[in-house]
Amino acid sequence: MVASSERPTVETSISSFGLARSTVQGTPLSPDELWKMHAFWRAANYLALGMIYLRDNPLLREPLKDEHIKQRLLGHWGSSPGIAFLYTHLNRIIKKFDQDMLFMVGPGHGAPGFLGPCYLEGTYSHYFSHCTEDVEGMKRFFKQFSFPGGVGSHCTPETPGSIHEGGELGYSISHAFGAAFDNPDLIVVTMPGDGEAETGPLATSWHSNKFLNPIRDGAVLPVLHLNGYKINNPTILARISHEELESLFRGYGWTPYFVEGSEPESMHQALAATLDHCVSEIKRIQHEARSSGVATRPRWPMIVLRTPKGWTCPGEIDGHKVEGFWRSHQVPMGSMHGNEEHKRIFEEWMRSYKPEELFDENGKVFPYIREVAPEGNKRLGSTPYANGGLLRRELNMPDFRQYGIPVDRPGVVEAENTRPLGVFLRDVMKNNMNNFRIFGPDENTSNKLNAVYDVSKKFWIAEFLPEDLDGGELSPDGRVMEILSEHTLEGWLEGYLLTGRHGFFSTYESFAHVIDSMVGQHAKWLEICRHINWREEVSSLNLLITSTVWRQDHNGFTHQDPGFLDVILNKSPEVVRIYLPPDVNSLLSVANHCLQSEDYVNVIVSDKQMHLQYHDMDAAVRNCTKGIDIWEWASTDAGEEPDVVLATAGDIPTKESLAASVMLREAFPDLKIRFVNVIDLFKLTPATEHPHGLSDSDFDSLFTTDKPIIFNFHGYPWLIHRLTYRRTNHENLHVRGYKEKGNINTPLELAICNQIDRFSIAIDVIDRVPKLKNAGAHTKEQLKDEQIACRNYAFEHGIDRPDIVNWKWPY
Amino acid sequence: MVASSERPTVETSISSFGLARSTVQGTPLSPDELWKMHAFWRAANYLALGMIYLRDNPLLREPLKDEHIKQRLLGHWGSSPGIAFLYTHLNRIIKKFDQDMLFMVGPGHGAPGFLGPCYLEGTYSHYFSHCTEDVEGMKRFFKQFSFPGGVGSHCTPETPGSIHEGGELGYSISHAFGAAFDNPDLIVVTMPGDGEAETGPLATSWHSNKFLNPIRDGAVLPVLHLNGYKINNPTILARISHEELESLFRGYGWTPYFVEGSEPESMHQALAATLDHCVSEIKRIQHEARSSGVATRPRWPMIVLRTPKGWTCPGEIDGHKVEGFWRSHQVPMGSMHGNEEHKRIFEEWMRSYKPEELFDENGKVFPYIREVAPEGNKRLGSTPYANGGLLRRELNMPDFRQYGIPVDRPGVVEAENTRPLGVFLRDVMKNNMNNFRIFGPDENTSNKLNAVYDVSKKFWIAEFLPEDLDGGELSPDGRVMEILSEHTLEGWLEGYLLTGRHGFFSTYESFAHVIDSMVGQHAKWLEICRHINWREEVSSLNLLITSTVWRQDHNGFTHQDPGFLDVILNKSPEVVRIYLPPDVNSLLSVANHCLQSEDYVNVIVSDKQMHLQYHDMDAAVRNCTKGIDIWEWASTDAGEEPDVVLATAGDIPTKESLAASVMLREAFPDLKIRFVNVIDLFKLTPATEHPHGLSDSDFDSLFTTDKPIIFNFHGYPWLIHRLTYRRTNHENLHVRGYKEKGNINTPLELAICNQIDRFSIAIDVIDRVPKLKNAGAHTKEQLKDEQIACRNYAFEHGIDRPDIVNWKWPY
Repeated sequence: MVASSERPTVETSISSFGLARSTVQGTPLSPDELWKMHAFWRAANYLALGMIYLRDNPLLREPLKDEHIKQRLLGHWGSSPGIAFLYTHLNRIIKKFDQDMLFMVGPGHGAPGFLGPCYLEGTYSHYFSHCTEDVEGMKRFFKQFSFPGGVGSHCTPETPGSIHEGGELGYSISHAFGAAFDNPDLIVVTMPGDGEAETGPLATSWHSNKFLNPIRDGAVLPVLHLNGYKINNPTILARISHEELESLFRGYGWTPYFVEGSEPESMHQALAATLDHCVSEIKRIQHEARSSGVATRPRWPMIVLRTPKGWTCPGEIDGHKVEGFWRSHQVPMGSMHGNEEHKRIFEEWMRSYKPEELFDENGKVFPYIREVAPEGNKRLGSTPYANGGLLRRELNMPDFRQYGIPVDRPGVVEAENTRPLGVFLRDVMKNNMNNFRIFGPDENTSNKLNAVYDVSKKFWIAEFLPEDLDGGELSPDGRVMEILSEHTLEGWLEGYLLTGRHGFFSTYESFAHVIDSMVGQHAKWLEICRHINWREEVSSLNLLITSTVWRQDHNGFTHQDPGFLDVILNKSPEVVRIYLPPDVNSLLSVANHCLQSEDYVNVIVSDKQMHLQYHDMDAAVRNCTKGIDIWEWASTDAGEEPDVVLATAGDIPTKESLAASVMLREAFPDLKIRFVNVIDLFKLTPATEHPHGLSDSDFDSLFTTDKPIIFNFHGYPWLIHRLTYRRTNHENLHVRGYKEKGNINTPLELAICNQIDRFSIAIDVIDRVPKLKNAGAHTKEQLKDEQIACRNYAFEHGIDRPDIVNWKWPY
Repeated sequence: MVASSERPTVETSISSFGLARSTVQGTPLSPDELWKMHAFWRAANYLALGMIYLRDNPLLREPLKDEHIKQRLLGHWGSSPGIAFLYTHLNRIIKKFDQDMLFMVGPGHGAPGFLGPCYLEGTYSHYFSHCTEDVEGMKRFFKQFSFPGGVGSHCTPETPGSIHEGGELGYSISHAFGAAFDNPDLIVVTMPGDGEAETGPLATSWHSNKFLNPIRDGAVLPVLHLNGYKINNPTILARISHEELESLFRGYGWTPYFVEGSEPESMHQALAATLDHCVSEIKRIQHEARSSGVATRPRWPMIVLRTPKGWTCPGEIDGHKVEGFWRSHQVPMGSMHGNEEHKRIFEEWMRSYKPEELFDENGKVFPYIREVAPEGNKRLGSTPYANGGLLRRELNMPDFRQYGIPVDRPGVVEAENTRPLGVFLRDVMKNNMNNFRIFGPDENTSNKLNAVYDVSKKFWIAEFLPEDLDGGELSPDGRVMEILSEHTLEGWLEGYLLTGRHGFFSTYESFAHVIDSMVGQHAKWLEICRHINWREEVSSLNLLITSTVWRQDHNGFTHQDPGFLDVILNKSPEVVRIYLPPDVNSLLSVANHCLQSEDYVNVIVSDKQMHLQYHDMDAAVRNCTKGIDIWEWASTDAGEEPDVVLATAGDIPTKESLAASVMLREAFPDLKIRFVNVIDLFKLTPATEHPHGLSDSDFDSLFTTDKPIIFNFHGYPWLIHRLTYRRTNHENLHVRGYKEKGNINTPLELAICNQIDRFSIAIDVIDRVPKLKNAGAHTKEQLKDEQIACRNYAFEHGIDRPDIVNWKWPY
């Protein structure tokens, strides 16, 4: 094979910037307007640079000395000027159209480009009152950027006007759509970076335009920032041809408008003309749909803004190209202390923005610049859409008790646990038709929640076919959001919640791991918000984990993973909750609670198949309220100290342990069994670690201090140990759960592989209760034989033995 | 707002199938060839249907009775005919071009469409010898499909010819590219489904065409299966206009060829003509590049195959449209037992494939059909590319000891731990220039591994600019793969490994969660393979987790998450390994071991910043070999029973605990400290749970049976409890680690927030060693004051106090 390393580089049209080239032509800005906007942008750039470098002497009114410069230079210059450029222009649009707008910054570490304008418009000083609009305040504003105890270099929760941190890349577009749903007056401008654009979640989220109704929803205007480079690499989208780039976005269903260049005056005119056109186009689309009442899928506009990375920084430093190259990504020039040449370059660079034209004697921005920004809550830094709790209306809840099923005796009736929840959600939907949505990856019917379609279909605005009328449940008015992308759904839901609405997301348990990272980041966002006094409470993120590990049947090993709970448990106890209701009525009670809660990530685990029902509604509510309780009817300790505690969490483990208890009762009539069921998993945690945690004395009174506990758990068994290792009786705690043993299995066979089945649990009891050690030997052999017989039946017939499937509580 | 629910459905060109429409015209198949191929396809469809429905009477030679039908109908018909259709045609291409080919099935549950052809070509019977090529064998073949103890409905590891299960969707294209890299003679045909195409990972993986070198790599031919529907929903790509669809793929850089229709004869001709054209085009591109030695990015061909969902099944059942609709997704017709009408429909459907023309008296497929498939290892079901261990050559390893750094005294020298690893990897690369690659999301330089660029650049074949020569490190010959998509990288790496090569992936710790699910699925694949005797060992998946939680500094809370380890720990102990080498030499030793290991997921945690160095190479190798050991030089117990055990795992916790031990020594000269360092995390697990686990007696001899243990851990602290809760001295084990407390922090300040810092550890010791409880009160106050002073310094200066940063082991 011939080596090709000597391949010459190819010069392309994108290698040199200059006068703007743009799809939309025009010079809408008057010289005066242009001058003011350019000043606003220069001021924003000045501030961005100041945040990265300075801890003192913010307006360079003294000769620059080492002690004015931060000891550690942190922050990212690369995308800041482009972000500030767009911010400047959005100000004009907001004022021109009296427009409600939310601006989401996609690029990681893009905060300097956003915080500068916030400071100029006065919102920063509003939220950080010590950062006043004067020299001293500017100094503090600079210093606290990316500084311990200060404000982050992403658009963190501390950032006014932000609901999108961008610390983890990939979600700017899905967050934007979530914010736009049911906010017909809002335009969400979102600026994905071209680095972010390489991530999978972002790549598919462009298709969100097929899920927006121009009548009832607002609009999303994506402005792809073709900045050219990531940390050390070119970006893909910046190095494909113009034709490919344009085709790509047309293929995604957008109409792309290009604004490319670096010469400021022409770039201002080009972006202004393009934004005018795009916003007018959005309004035309909305007007057409809203006046006709017919919602079809338009080609929404989007913008490709190609500017040099690090725009306006020195072209070359130390002999290396910086502006327009990846070397401007983070801090374009380090080693400042003691380096006079670098200090000189820095000062020249700072002065190139002409601070004397921007800030008055006291350090306050001149009014002619300030007035580029709008007033009050129209300002991007103080829009209430970015502090959704301000706009949030409580859900109008139906009485969940109406959706329960009668349970006269425990463990006799069977029902699909999630189906009545679907009916309940249907009426939650009916009562809240503009601030509640349901999300799921093409699985709401599979998950038995399809009753919701009676009041609201699946949203669909792409092409319809006649056959869709036969059970397709599709409608452009639908409020059930289904796309086969957990990332997109999670992003939409987060955006929807953070702008003050409510939602419910159901997904297959194993594939919840797909959004491990996203949910973790949302929990982190909520955790920080709890400590920011101006952030109002938002609705919790409610996640139903269903089609669980124990009922994968033919789906096999890939579909068996209950480990999402382990990921959730790592997040701050202030913001995460986990519930495992074992039957219909407890699931309804838990869901009712979760839907009305605030600022949590609630994870509810409940399988969708037929399961035994244990409690009528009153008892279920009591159980859920307590979160953990003794099931008297399943216990034989009659209030005395038991010989063994059978504890369970989760629907299938509960049934198996109940069946074990019956076999044990029959074999050992004197055995005192206490049956404890856990719905609220955090009850197990010490009270010092989680607000739901039981006190040690309460824990001990349930679990005894010295009797064996056989805990049959829905998930990986070590999770229970992790919660309980400090409890008095932990030494006698024996946990069964999924331990990564499976393939194509019947339910019982899978339970047997992982020893959560009735036979294994009964054997565990015999092995651990001292008085059964010898007396139980024969029973144990019988149990083992029976277990083998059950497996053999499954291997022969492909299903479980009827007596196992139809097992009921016999007393 | 006006309701729009009355919107009429729109008929489009795609609603009615019929004669083929295709980009490439032609009728390359002779009538004889057409007849045979059609028979092969019919046979494959017959078998697919049989697998889903039948447990007996496979050739319907008896009247169909209930007992012939499986008691539980499992499996997915919907995409099977399309998959089998493509398989049939790939056979022809393989034979025509004597082509090495690997076929990856994207759609979940697509196995029936793949297993049928495997049975016809004889590979299925080769691997499952009881499923002979006769009536009895066919019966077993049918029965064991999606049956306990049998073969899954995805293309699981048991599936001959598969390296891609498809149980979790989104990876068919990235897996295909991984397989094609460095296999110049191979064409990987991959068939993403249109459901899968909605996932983020798949949406970005189309850009993989910018990472393929036509000279040294093979080709990937994606065949998007526009099947129209997911479980209950239309797919997005099937409901956008032809123009949008074509633009999308052109935008992604492909040349799309369409084959659309349902009428078999014309569809056979159309697909044959299209495949002929695409394969010729691939060969033309390869020839041009290989003969000129110049690798540029071509527009590779891809195919859009639009066929009706459930193709060839009944058009209508029970009054509902089935073929060409989502109702054919899984089992198109249930409730067979006792339903004579359904049995009649089924029998008619089965007989529509004319089994009497397909299988001889004994049930063996007629030779004229068998000969459609190629012979031997050219068969898709027995290609060695799908059993990569067969092709795998061991790495030619340089001596890792050469890359170490001299360490005369422990804890004095500082070095960036990952930088020498980069030099080592450089030479691994140099020695293995066609079967080793390095993967990372734009972070290899950030992670200090950039020495590798000395021998191999980052692969780049999109546009080049002159400035790229200044440190861009880009080359179309590069073997370092960088794209800002962890999903794509992981997919490429998995495909590369499973076809018998070697690789190394480094990523930021927090964002390893992005691929939680993928890595978990890969571990599951490896776990199943261990129990399949014909699956040869492949290289381990080596993942370096760096830029760790403790050194996020300005990156903030989003970048602090060491929980990937918790996810890994849930996987089978047979296939996962976790290492936390604390310094350069131990990292080299661990990496050397991991690179040569087989069938594991190896996770190595090592930060990239400057860290103290503890051991020379000999000692490091000893430590790594043992995996856990007492550091004598840091201990003061002199072989006696200590007062306290200071245990650590991870670079930064180790330094902090060492610093704590020094403060303790100074304050309490008589205190007997034992210092234990853990590199191999699974040493802590009981020997019964993990092959690396220490015996209880070994554990006790290290950790004592009753002395306090202060364990300073890199990750979430409960992870250590989860591993050790059965150990004798667990009650006295006190673990510190990251507990989700952070924001913008200096390293020490973050440590203090989470109590892993030197002061907290020293205080922990004072609190837990009985003889210090009173004696230590004053010291404890001093430590607290010092801790506060350090925090205040950080808040004031934005960096840690120099004495903290420059701390060295003083003895």
